[in-house]
Amino acid sequence: IETKLPKVGTTIFSVMSHLAVQHKAVNLGQGFPDFEPPQALRDAVSRAMAGGLNQYAPGIGTAALREQIAIKTERLYGHKVSADSDITVTSGATEALFAAIAAVVRAGEEVIVFDPAYDSYEPAIELQGARAVHIPLTVPTFSIDWQRVRDAITPRTRMILINSPHNPSGAVLSAQDLDELAAIVRDTSIVVLSDEVYEHIVYDGAEHQSVLRHPELAARSIVVSSFGKTYHCTGWKVGYAVAPTKLSAEFRKVHQYLTFCTFHPAQVAFAEFLATTPEHYLELPAFYQAKRDSFRNLLAPSRLKLLDVPGGYFQLVDYSSIRDEDDVAFCERLVKEGGVAAIPLTPFYEKAPGTRLVRLCFAKSDATMEAAAERLCKL
Amino acid sequence: IETKLPKVGTTIFSVMSHLAVQHKAVNLGQGFPDFEPPQALRDAVSRAMAGGLNQYAPGIGTAALREQIAIKTERLYGHKVSADSDITVTSGATEALFAAIAAVVRAGEEVIVFDPAYDSYEPAIELQGARAVHIPLTVPTFSIDWQRVRDAITPRTRMILINSPHNPSGAVLSAQDLDELAAIVRDTSIVVLSDEVYEHIVYDGAEHQSVLRHPELAARSIVVSSFGKTYHCTGWKVGYAVAPTKLSAEFRKVHQYLTFCTFHPAQVAFAEFLATTPEHYLELPAFYQAKRDSFRNLLAPSRLKLLDVPGGYFQLVDYSSIRDEDDVAFCERLVKEGGVAAIPLTPFYEKAPGTRLVRLCFAKSDATMEAAAERLCKL
Ligand SMILES: CSCCC(=O)C(=O)O
Ligand SMILES: CSCCC(=O)C(=O)O
Repeated sequence: IETKLPKVGTTIFSVMSHLAVQHKAVNLGQGFPDFEPPQALRDAVSRAMAGGLNQYAPGIGTAALREQIAIKTERLYGHKVSADSDITVTSGATEALFAAIAAVVRAGEEVIVFDPAYDSYEPAIELQGARAVHIPLTVPTFSIDWQRVRDAITPRTRMILINSPHNPSGAVLSAQDLDELAAIVRDTSIVVLSDEVYEHIVYDGAEHQSVLRHPELAARSIVVSSFGKTYHCTGWKVGYAVAPTKLSAEFRKVHQYLTFCTFHPAQVAFAEFLATTPEHYLELPAFYQAKRDSFRNLLAPSRLKLLDVPGGYFQLVDYSSIRDEDDVAFCERLVKEGGVAAIPLTPFYEKAPGTRLVRLCFAKSDATMEAAAERLCKL
Repeated sequence: IETKLPKVGTTIFSVMSHLAVQHKAVNLGQGFPDFEPPQALRDAVSRAMAGGLNQYAPGIGTAALREQIAIKTERLYGHKVSADSDITVTSGATEALFAAIAAVVRAGEEVIVFDPAYDSYEPAIELQGARAVHIPLTVPTFSIDWQRVRDAITPRTRMILINSPHNPSGAVLSAQDLDELAAIVRDTSIVVLSDEVYEHIVYDGAEHQSVLRHPELAARSIVVSSFGKTYHCTGWKVGYAVAPTKLSAEFRKVHQYLTFCTFHPAQVAFAEFLATTPEHYLELPAFYQAKRDSFRNLLAPSRLKLLDVPGGYFQLVDYSSIRDEDDVAFCERLVKEGGVAAIPLTPFYEKAPGTRLVRLCFAKSDATMEAAAERLCKL
């Protein structure tokens, strides 16, 4: 059998986590917390299991959870959505991204993505027989040059895929960026897919500029978020998509045959937790800002140059004063000899720009950050 | 936006479960038990959550669970597989089926399916730009006419999708069927996708004829199973795929970008439970045979004609002596006026044969079966 995905190997996240275990490295690679989801949430899952909620959930998600997502969406972004027709619970944000692409993008069409781009985007696009059109973000701010976007639009452009807060850079889109995007897609049939899995993690008092704040964009966007990122349980694999009714209908057609539904007890638990503890996500910026700041302090004595982190839970560091080698080689050496797993940026580029940047995850306990920093300061 | 799936509406399972709730009908439609998974399994999930296993599992599944699947596969089917390279844990069997089709089937190719065919097969095939070639099973035994298969093979045939025990009919393939299939695919590059989610539910002392028993077929097959069906927890959404190394590699490329990984605590729990209680799945045939037999006894006084049930947990009934209307109309009337939700067969056919058969799920408690039978006997 010939491969349908000749460019694809094992995702860098699996490769690096595997190497981290093998070399007993501190794992700041794959993006997940090393602390636990709230006890109340775990208890609620156990209660749901004891309460007999172990069979299929509704394919679109439980009514209670969709209701809570609708409440949150209106509260945060002033955007009214129908829990019935505009929200779909998915088996993680990855499934939501795949379902959105599979539902909308056809063979021969083009999807604009911004490099560095999360590594699941392009294979999902290619499996539709479509093509990813890569526009590099402007280094070191990782901002979008909208003129390049305008120039890249063709009659085949079906989708623009944005991601804010951005993984791996932490860059965030501004309200002005959304206006630029809206002007570009106006009078076209381009769908916006907005990966907002770090929506609750923005710093220094900034507000997350969800496309759901922008009525014109919201009317043509599929917005993806992740309970795993918000509630420190990446291994529970619950996410969701918000989209206007017609787009949601197409999304759901695909979703129902991708996974049908998502782990039922966790849906019950998230609905309960959102209803009783809505402040949790409001406290997330402060929670992670403290981590970001202490991680940066710990790294201050190192020879790594720290880039700004406006959002998300990753720190980009420039290692060019330590070694002159590409980021993949640097990460391999780092995990094997330096005892720290990091993520190189090259796998997220069509054409690697040769930057000397790697990504470190700071969704970690103090002890983990200290152990990693001690090693990183020795470089 | 124009739909990519013009033939697809909401899956009949969701439609019928929704109607069942609305009309307070006894739900024998969608295939799920109304009893609970083993207490030990639920406890193990809670323990895994308390034990800090709430972040991403390995994308291919935990090592311990893959190991247990390998042990089971060898024990039951005498087939040695590598836990490392030949087994992938998925977010339910639905995801495994989709990933298998997406990994193997290309635009312009053909996949042979047997009608009535589970409703996720064709949309998954169509999303690849490929075509489902439908061969009707021979009624009322729902057996395969292999001459029709030979006649349907073209240079574009990429896959044959079999399902035994068969949903909705309960028909099972024999060792001779597998030989016929092997002879047909020999010297071709056709991949077999074998949906065996009811592998542990075969009756009257028969042995499940997994393609994994047939070395020649096993070497070119992707076999899909479901912990939800085996352990009475369809809402946990854990399944898996077994395939030879090269096919598994292609499968995994897609899987890692479809859902990446599956609810971690349940994987830990299934691995523990398989290790400590392997007899559970050995006791499943007797457990369900008792249900099948008591359900059939309960329906004996009715005017429904009961077809044979060699496997699975569905009973097909012929209602032609009660009403002369098509099965969709009959099921609608039954859920609204008769107080029982059933599944019509028409949605699983390309060309509905006009049979007067509907599917009833007997994975139910005695009380549920009795309540349903009381209503069905009044028809
Ligand atoms: C799905 S594994 C990757 C997790 C993640 O979002 C990241 O590390 O960027
Ligand atoms: C995924 S919902 C359908 C469940 C099932 O396998 C069936 O009812 O046939």
